[in-house]
Amino acid sequence: MSSSRPRRAFLVGSGRMIYFTKILGEQVLDSNGEPVGTVSDLAIDTREIFPRVTSIAFVGPDKRPFMLSWRKYVAEFSPKRITLNQPGNKLRFSYLQPAEVLLARDLLDHQIVDTQGRKVVRVNDVKLTESRRDLRVLGADVGFRGILRRLNLERPFDVTLSLVRYRIPENLIAWNYIDLLERDLSGVKLSVTHKRLHELHPADIADIIGQMDAAHRVRVFEHLDLLRAADTISESEPEVAAELVESLGNKRASDILEIMPPDDAADIVGGLPYEKAEVLLSLMGFKEAAEIRKLLGYKEHTAGGIMTTDFTALSENLTVEETIGRLRELAPEEETIYYIYVVDDEGHLKGVLSLRDLIVSTPDTHIHDTMLTDIITVNVDDDQEKVADVISKYDLIAAPVVEEAGKLVGIVTVDDVLEVMEQESAEDIAILTGSRWPLRFDTTFSWFVQRSGWLSVWLFAGVVAGTILFVYLPTLRSLAATILFIPLILRISDDVGNRSVAAIIQSLEGDSEEVRRGLLRRTGLDLLVSVGIGLLSGLLALVLLSIWRQPLETALSLGVSVAVTIVLVGSIGTVLPLVLERLDLDPTVATGPIVTTGMSALGLLIYLYLAAAVGARM
Amino acid sequence: MSSSRPRRAFLVGSGRMIYFTKILGEQVLDSNGEPVGTVSDLAIDTREIFPRVTSIAFVGPDKRPFMLSWRKYVAEFSPKRITLNQPGNKLRFSYLQPAEVLLARDLLDHQIVDTQGRKVVRVNDVKLTESRRDLRVLGADVGFRGILRRLNLERPFDVTLSLVRYRIPENLIAWNYIDLLERDLSGVKLSVTHKRLHELHPADIADIIGQMDAAHRVRVFEHLDLLRAADTISESEPEVAAELVESLGNKRASDILEIMPPDDAADIVGGLPYEKAEVLLSLMGFKEAAEIRKLLGYKEHTAGGIMTTDFTALSENLTVEETIGRLRELAPEEETIYYIYVVDDEGHLKGVLSLRDLIVSTPDTHIHDTMLTDIITVNVDDDQEKVADVISKYDLIAAPVVEEAGKLVGIVTVDDVLEVMEQESAEDIAILTGSRWPLRFDTTFSWFVQRSGWLSVWLFAGVVAGTILFVYLPTLRSLAATILFIPLILRISDDVGNRSVAAIIQSLEGDSEEVRRGLLRRTGLDLLVSVGIGLLSGLLALVLLSIWRQPLETALSLGVSVAVTIVLVGSIGTVLPLVLERLDLDPTVATGPIVTTGMSALGLLIYLYLAAAVGARM
Repeated sequence: MSSSRPRRAFLVGSGRMIYFTKILGEQVLDSNGEPVGTVSDLAIDTREIFPRVTSIAFVGPDKRPFMLSWRKYVAEFSPKRITLNQPGNKLRFSYLQPAEVLLARDLLDHQIVDTQGRKVVRVNDVKLTESRRDLRVLGADVGFRGILRRLNLERPFDVTLSLVRYRIPENLIAWNYIDLLERDLSGVKLSVTHKRLHELHPADIADIIGQMDAAHRVRVFEHLDLLRAADTISESEPEVAAELVESLGNKRASDILEIMPPDDAADIVGGLPYEKAEVLLSLMGFKEAAEIRKLLGYKEHTAGGIMTTDFTALSENLTVEETIGRLRELAPEEETIYYIYVVDDEGHLKGVLSLRDLIVSTPDTHIHDTMLTDIITVNVDDDQEKVADVISKYDLIAAPVVEEAGKLVGIVTVDDVLEVMEQESAEDIAILTGSRWPLRFDTTFSWFVQRSGWLSVWLFAGVVAGTILFVYLPTLRSLAATILFIPLILRISDDVGNRSVAAIIQSLEGDSEEVRRGLLRRTGLDLLVSVGIGLLSGLLALVLLSIWRQPLETALSLGVSVAVTIVLVGSIGTVLPLVLERLDLDPTVATGPIVTTGMSALGLLIYLYLAAAVGARM
Repeated sequence: MSSSRPRRAFLVGSGRMIYFTKILGEQVLDSNGEPVGTVSDLAIDTREIFPRVTSIAFVGPDKRPFMLSWRKYVAEFSPKRITLNQPGNKLRFSYLQPAEVLLARDLLDHQIVDTQGRKVVRVNDVKLTESRRDLRVLGADVGFRGILRRLNLERPFDVTLSLVRYRIPENLIAWNYIDLLERDLSGVKLSVTHKRLHELHPADIADIIGQMDAAHRVRVFEHLDLLRAADTISESEPEVAAELVESLGNKRASDILEIMPPDDAADIVGGLPYEKAEVLLSLMGFKEAAEIRKLLGYKEHTAGGIMTTDFTALSENLTVEETIGRLRELAPEEETIYYIYVVDDEGHLKGVLSLRDLIVSTPDTHIHDTMLTDIITVNVDDDQEKVADVISKYDLIAAPVVEEAGKLVGIVTVDDVLEVMEQESAEDIAILTGSRWPLRFDTTFSWFVQRSGWLSVWLFAGVVAGTILFVYLPTLRSLAATILFIPLILRISDDVGNRSVAAIIQSLEGDSEEVRRGLLRRTGLDLLVSVGIGLLSGLLALVLLSIWRQPLETALSLGVSVAVTIVLVGSIGTVLPLVLERLDLDPTVATGPIVTTGMSALGLLIYLYLAAAVGARM
């Protein structure tokens, strides 16, 4: 054995940080200094908290892939090359073990689940560290920094941003918070601290699968037990929930729907195609199916539409002790137990008592004597906003829903009201601004279409107004060519201003690091869109003016003015929220009008100035 | 006795409806047909459900006021006059009894509390009915119809509105739902169905006193017992609560604050002048004062700022039965009992169990074995929106608030989160639109100032932009006079459009009858404001153009064009929500941009058309 040689020279100066993308493509030399190939991947042992690199994969000159044990063969490791401790002909190749994954094949550029941050992210690099005898994974780099590094732009960016004293933070996810989406590690015993996706709170699982594509979702879903699957679907957005249920087998889907709260189940069944819905209902227990059918009969956005039929109703003749005994038998769900409703034989609501009243009353009291009879109820046809108002005003945890004759048919719980309020607030803002709320930075393409779609409408309106002017108002024809585009400019400036305000509002909310990254990404996209819209509008102006037989100089000068104005105004409006965020200004009630007025005035000034200046030159 | 005479001829055809304002000023004749005076008031017996008119007050020719018993003296009653059954010299005057109130003095044109509708309203008329031997009060007319009647405009309005098949509804409040603000009836035993303000739910009392002026508030407050006073203040808007506490004596104020939830008490104390706050805190129990002081130390809009220190924390060594026993002793408040927090000796949060878990577990289980240890917490410095997100996402009723080291310091309950969400949503919309949210139709004057205030800013911006154009862009000077006002027109059109959209959103919400009335009232006011702004802008245009030495015809024609355009656009935008409401159209996400674009294009067209047309004539 050659154990006397300094086999691992690279361990001197241990603690060095190495990025995986820097190792990829490095040369591998044998102990004679002969090249045997270039590094194509690294295998890690997934069972450790900081997984050790177990083997090195490389491709030889004839493109053949090899794997070699790291511990056994690697003698020296430097940023430039890897030297082995054996001559090429003495190397014995190894194979990937079940507990191993490959960094390039399974991690790099793949989507993974960050179980701590509770989101789906893309791995841009893997950070490694030399630790005694081994090279170990510190974490997956999922930040902007990783992208810059691979574009060789890390240093230039750092230097530039250091001028404004900003440093792009590194965004690292430790291995024990990573769950792979495309490689199933469920057969491997991971370290106890290693969080798997299906061990999270159902609300978190719902959040995370909401960020995945359908194929990944179904795969994740297969690992969930029935109860967690039901809870996860309950917490998912309606579209995601419907899609998941449709993708599941009928048996499993109906089992899941059966144990879900009936209101959530009804929401999902209501969104399914008729045939599918009927099949699932027929597979369910009679009682559960009947409840869902009944709930489906109520109008959306009413108390009936958001209520659940899971409530605890008892007769008034029980004592407190008997009631507690009954509850122990029934073991109702968390949200549906906080009030106990007292009903007569026909189901008419007679009184209500809270679990608290039950606990603090002496055991032999009759609930008839402790119950509250001045009950706040909502009607089954009441609008959901009224229900929200009632629950919010009287600080209730649930409101009983009654039919005309006072019969108790369901309850609306406060968590449903929170959803209603989020929904209504988003709707209000959407109506006000004509854009989706919250601004989504992740679905770039659809957003681009939406935004340019809107601007086209405005473009069209401006052009129609201009055309009418041009055709029907001969006295103004001398001004018409210039005036024609003023409405367009003002409208686009106003839109840019509105988007700025929306971004400013959003920057006030939530986690600042995430918001900052969102803003940064949006800024880039908005700038691109502004340029696109500007060019489009300029071109349109040119074409229109030519059709109206204006001199080419006029057409050109106005077209250029329109394009440049829109690009400039767009850029200013886009950068504004960033600047305000930097300055840490608190927006006041007046922000909206001030920004939109300012942008309009600015847009007009730029346009007229350009029109005059360019016109004068030509 | 003259009992054989047909004393009460007016009772034939009983059931006739009579309005009090029609009786006021009627002639009173004695049995000889001699006039003895004119009706100045009617007294009613407040103890009945439909109060009977007990006496009639009238002023004689020498302006002297008299009161006569209705039952004893009134022989005949017709819409034109009241005839007595005795000659003038045989009349014996009566006096007002403690249980009686006067319709004109105490009710008509006064503010009363509608305890069913839960609001403060103004009485415009009183509706009476003939019922067997008596004249009885049916209710107080608080609607628009009552106002129209007194202006003698009821019929014209009915005829006009019948063209659009609309009938202004009568808005009547029955006596047993009326509580007088200016006359204290607490000494009178009212009918059992008669609801008094102080018998309502504290949330309703808070709502109602929020609509009163300070003097009335204090008077109402004097009748509330300590607990209800505390609850009412808890539910009141911060300004109202602070004002009430300041107006109370120090002793009562500190008593009330002491029994309030500490978070609400801290909010109020935090808003008081330093001296007053210190006095109140010093009058309180040591523990309560310390808690409030501690809460005051946290930043507003953070978990610490909205949390309460009222929570139930127990040691993990108890059994379920012992825990229930402890809770029975402690008898915590409704909102603070739903979760029981398990802490170690240093107050570090170890686990949580819900009241439901406690109820459904077997009595001898140790809570250590049933508690959940994977606890969702928020940090004391977390933003309130993050707290709202956590509670909403995980469907919690309360979230525990911990300090850095994991020490439990308070809880945020779901009802506080509902408030936070309402507040944040209102703020977002306020920033977007630059107007208060919700639009308040009741404070006309402040709204007028706000609206015209905003328009002045826009006016100013438009004029500045125009001036810059005019001065610095000589090539455009020929167009300048007309162009100058285009930004102004577009901005105002846009504003009108935005207000329309806001009104449309509001018309979607809440009770439709109330909204309709709000919209109607707003329409009138908005039209007035439009005319005002139009005239102002036109005048400004005239002045500006004169200063810039434009010919008088130009100045006049443009000034008129500006004024007329603004009035027209304002009117259209104001009426639009009414039309949409009538047509029952469902606004889509696109409503905002479509309306504002439409209004801008319309405004521009009208302006340019007028400028051209008027200019051509002059």
